[in-house]
Formats: sequence, C-alpha cells, structure tokens
Amino acid sequence: MRLVGLTEITAARTVITTASAGTVRTPLLPLPESDPVRPLLLKPENLQPTGAFKIRGALNAAAAVPERSRAAGLVAYSSGNHARAVAHAARALGMPATVVVPHTAPAAKVSAARELGAEIVPVEVAEREQRARDIAEERGATLVPPFDDPTVIAGQGTVGLEIAEDARPDAVLVPVSGGGLISGVGVAVKALHPHARVIGVEPELAADARESLHAGHRRHWSVGSRTSTAADGLTAEPSELTFAHLREVVDDIVTVSENEIAETVGHLARTYRLVVERSGAVAAAAHRYHPELLPPGTTVAVVSGGNIDHRDLVTLLAD
Amino acid sequence: MRLVGLTEITAARTVITTASAGTVRTPLLPLPESDPVRPLLLKPENLQPTGAFKIRGALNAAAAVPERSRAAGLVAYSSGNHARAVAHAARALGMPATVVVPHTAPAAKVSAARELGAEIVPVEVAEREQRARDIAEERGATLVPPFDDPTVIAGQGTVGLEIAEDARPDAVLVPVSGGGLISGVGVAVKALHPHARVIGVEPELAADARESLHAGHRRHWSVGSRTSTAADGLTAEPSELTFAHLREVVDDIVTVSENEIAETVGHLARTYRLVVERSGAVAAAAHRYHPELLPPGTTVAVVSGGNIDHRDLVTLLAD
Repeated sequence: MRLVGLTEITAARTVITTASAGTVRTPLLPLPESDPVRPLLLKPENLQPTGAFKIRGALNAAAAVPERSRAAGLVAYSSGNHARAVAHAARALGMPATVVVPHTAPAAKVSAARELGAEIVPVEVAEREQRARDIAEERGATLVPPFDDPTVIAGQGTVGLEIAEDARPDAVLVPVSGGGLISGVGVAVKALHPHARVIGVEPELAADARESLHAGHRRHWSVGSRTSTAADGLTAEPSELTFAHLREVVDDIVTVSENEIAETVGHLARTYRLVVERSGAVAAAAHRYHPELLPPGTTVAVVSGGNIDHRDLVTLLAD
Repeated sequence: MRLVGLTEITAARTVITTASAGTVRTPLLPLPESDPVRPLLLKPENLQPTGAFKIRGALNAAAAVPERSRAAGLVAYSSGNHARAVAHAARALGMPATVVVPHTAPAAKVSAARELGAEIVPVEVAEREQRARDIAEERGATLVPPFDDPTVIAGQGTVGLEIAEDARPDAVLVPVSGGGLISGVGVAVKALHPHARVIGVEPELAADARESLHAGHRRHWSVGSRTSTAADGLTAEPSELTFAHLREVVDDIVTVSENEIAETVGHLARTYRLVVERSGAVAAAAHRYHPELLPPGTTVAVVSGGNIDHRDLVTLLAD
C-alpha cells in the first residue's frame, strides 16, 4: 500500500496557505517551569478557526475537487470537528456541504456546522459512513472521509511539518482516533527528524489502535465499547490505510485514564490559558501523568481541538 | 522629547528572539463568522509563557543591562503581569530579581513571580515606585519600569511589528493603562501602515488616558478612582514619555463598561478557546460592543493577557 510522503504534505501546506480560509500557522507554546527532563511544547490546534486541526485535511481535500464537480459540493460524516471543518472548507471555496452526523454527536459541534451553511443529516452512528456514500453518489458530490484518504492525511500532516520546522523534538505525542492526524504527523516528523519518537495517545476506554499496533494487525472494538470514553472525538478506529501508516511511522501508543484527561483540561486552561476539549487534551495528559513511558528530551504534544461545551469546562475548572 | 522609533523596535525583536526565553511569536487569529464590515483578528498575547505581552519589554530591558551590573539584578514594581515578566526575564538571563507589589495585587500574579525565584516586597500601592527606586539604589540593581522607559516601550512595540507584518490593518485596538504597549504598537503600526488607525481602549472606570488625550495634556485621576475597575491590569496612568507617544501615534481612545468586559471574557473562551483576563479583553470588547466608533476594514485587537483566577473565569463562563 502506497503511503503518503513528505512531498504530498509540503504540497498540502501550499494549498492550505493559499486557500485564504483563515487557517492559522499555530506556534509551539513552551512552559518554562515544565519538566526539565522532558521540556514540553504544545501545538495548539484548538486555535484554528473551526477549533481543531481537521480544517487542514478538509481544505486540502476540498481544493483537490475538480472544477466540474464543485457545484455538487462536499459530503462528510463525522462526530463533529470534521463536519465543521468540511463545512468551513466548502464555504471558503464557494461549494455546498452536507454532513451526516450520529445522533450522539455533541450539539455544539453540530450547530457549528449548521451555522457555516451545511445541510445536516442525523443518523445512527453505525450507518453514518454508508449514508454519506449514498448521498455522494446520488448528488455527484465529493465525499471527504474524516481520515481514510491520502489527501486528508497529507493535510493533517502539515501539523507535523510545522512542528519539524519549529523544534528539534525527541518525542511527538499525538491523539489517535481514526489515525489520520498521527499518520500525517508521523510521516513529516520521521522524514525531517528520523530519531524523534512518534507516540500515539488514546483513552484507556478506546485503546483499540494501541491493541492493534501491538498485535501487528487491526483489532476491532465494538462501537459501544469505543464510545464509552468522554473524549468524544477519539471513538473512531484506524482504517487499512491509516493502520499501514501507523505501522510505518508510529513507535508506540500509550493510554490515559478518564480522570487524567479531565484534570488535564483544567490544567491547560489554568496554566496555558487554552480552552481544550477532552479529546484534545490526551497528549498533554500523557506527558503529565506518564512521563516514564516517554523518552527524555524535548516533547511536543499536539492539542488537537478545543470544542468543549462551556458548561462542561466550568465543571472541570471548578474541580 | 525623543520618541521610540521603528529601528529600536526591530532591534528589540532581535534581542527577544535571541534570548531563548520562550517568547512566542503569536499568530493572528481570525474568526470567519465575524463582522463582515470589520473582520476581526486577535493578537493573543495571553499565550506568552508568562501569560502577557509584558515579557517582551522585560526581556529587552534585561538584555540591555551591562555585564558589570548583572549580578546586582533587576527590580520592578507592578500590579502583577510586569512583575512576573521581570522575574521570568531575570531567570532566563541568570540574574536575581526583586519585585515590589501593592497589597491589592492579585494573589495568583504575585505567587507566579515568587515561583520564578523573585524576592517579593509588598507595599501600599502609592509607595510602590519610590520603594522600588530605593531598593535599586541600595543594591546597585537595575530598575525596570513597567512602561516609562524607551527600552520597555521598544520591547512592547514588537507586538505591533508582528501585526504589521502579518496583516494589513485598518484599525488596531490596544488596551491602555500606563501606555507602554500602545506607544510601541502605535510607532510600529504607523511606520509600516500609515493609514491604519491606532485606537486605545480603557475601562470607563479608568478612562484617564482618554480624558488626557482629548484635553491635550495629562489629566490625573486619583488612585482610588482608577482602581475601581475590575480590570486590575489597567489602573496605571501614562507618564510624560508615554503620553508624548500617545499624542503622536494614537488616533483615539474609546471606553468599555465593566459588563462589556466581563461578557467578552466569556465570549473569548467560548468562541476563540482563549482564557483571557479582564484587562486583556477590553480591545475585543470595543469591537464587540462599539463597532460604530471604529473605521470599517480589517481590525486587529490585542489580547494583552490571560492571568485570570480560574474561579473568576468559572463565574464569567457560567453566566
């Protein structure tokens, strides 16, 4: 299986920068008082205009749609941040968007996609991918998968390209769900800093990718078990394509508990002045609670998103 | 009176970048759904490692201390963010630091300076400047004023330099207290985008700089009246030096109410995923509540700091 390469990621960066869709080249945020053995730098993708890194892959995929197919628009299925990103990318490029969302998707994420002008189609979580494929076929629209797509992976990989340019990391910690982000980040980081370790982070309650990586083949967890974590953006499972990337560019996957995730959301607000959703906090949580699993040296943790309900944030800050 | 020029600000940028003290080149954050007439970009200085822009001026001043005077260290007086910045800059350059803080300073800001290794000297608010001068003289230490100093103004001006490089602003909104930030930002912005309007923002309850600018000479408000705003970082008054800059590079100063400030802190957390203190929210509040006072076109609002007590943030988010 052909993997995404550094060339496609650097091309994606040009596409994303040129699109004038408000994508932010996020800085690395240091904390001088942090662990001297493993100084931490955060990559705050929660600062993207849609609140998550997903805007990168969505823009790269939207820009790749040929002129003749643009009027038919984009279709996406997503638990939230990808839907919002596709809606944003479509609007930036003057295309219509339809997003198929599970009934379980957080209301804030769904309404954000609706406010961007997307048509919302609610379905059962297990049906969402098929329903999106059906809609794309009926309308001649272009399906933008959340991760199982080389163009999307290349777009997410621009996060890794920026990290590799701005730091000399010894370890890069990346949240893992479907694996699109860590696939792209891993390719970029390994190409430019071959000695750096690329380490995925999952909730203990949705650690299927960790089990798969250790087994050497994909192990399936039921939707019911994967969705028991409160980190609602980390409930997908790797595809054949992303798993092939994981085997090539990911050194290990570690896990964090629900309590560790929740406490880290509060910590990031208090110490870094960042509003982060649970799914976005897992990499920082791994550095905070499980340093013994990480190599010594400069550690970059990707903060993947910040679309948390503010009532939930209040609860986590008040603790 | 000689004003700070673009040359000193570009030199300050080199000093700050070379100091390896973790200063962040903050990006401009757009919000695609924002006001189409006055699209807003935020300059999030709350993401600096000390939580505020003050690190820039403090580093530039600390780096200017001659080698023979370094062992005697730095002295600062401040309501909080400047104290923390001087403590940080001193530590980064291997110097001791003493900070004189009023009894009224927020506990979180004072303890942050202490944790950075600074000696804390609490005094009455009206005595703080004289006490700092006395300590500097006794010890041969270097006083780093919070704003009344060309080196500090040049350091804060790097905020404006970055804005001028990253955008073509029609208006730049800057919080005003002692006026060091808007002096430096104004010089940089006017030098590189002469047509851009530089507009200060003050709390209604501490609008002495506005009154002074309109009168054409400095008007003094009593400490008691200036400190009635909950925006605890905006209670100083311009010096002769900063007021001379204001007259030259500031087009107007507008005011925001306490309620407008408080609501904007919640808005910035919910919409931009930024934790911002009241003083840091006034420029964004002016755009949100008083667009009629601003020219049409691209508006940059400087978010000057984010050191808010998390219990206070909980209250503002819960509203």
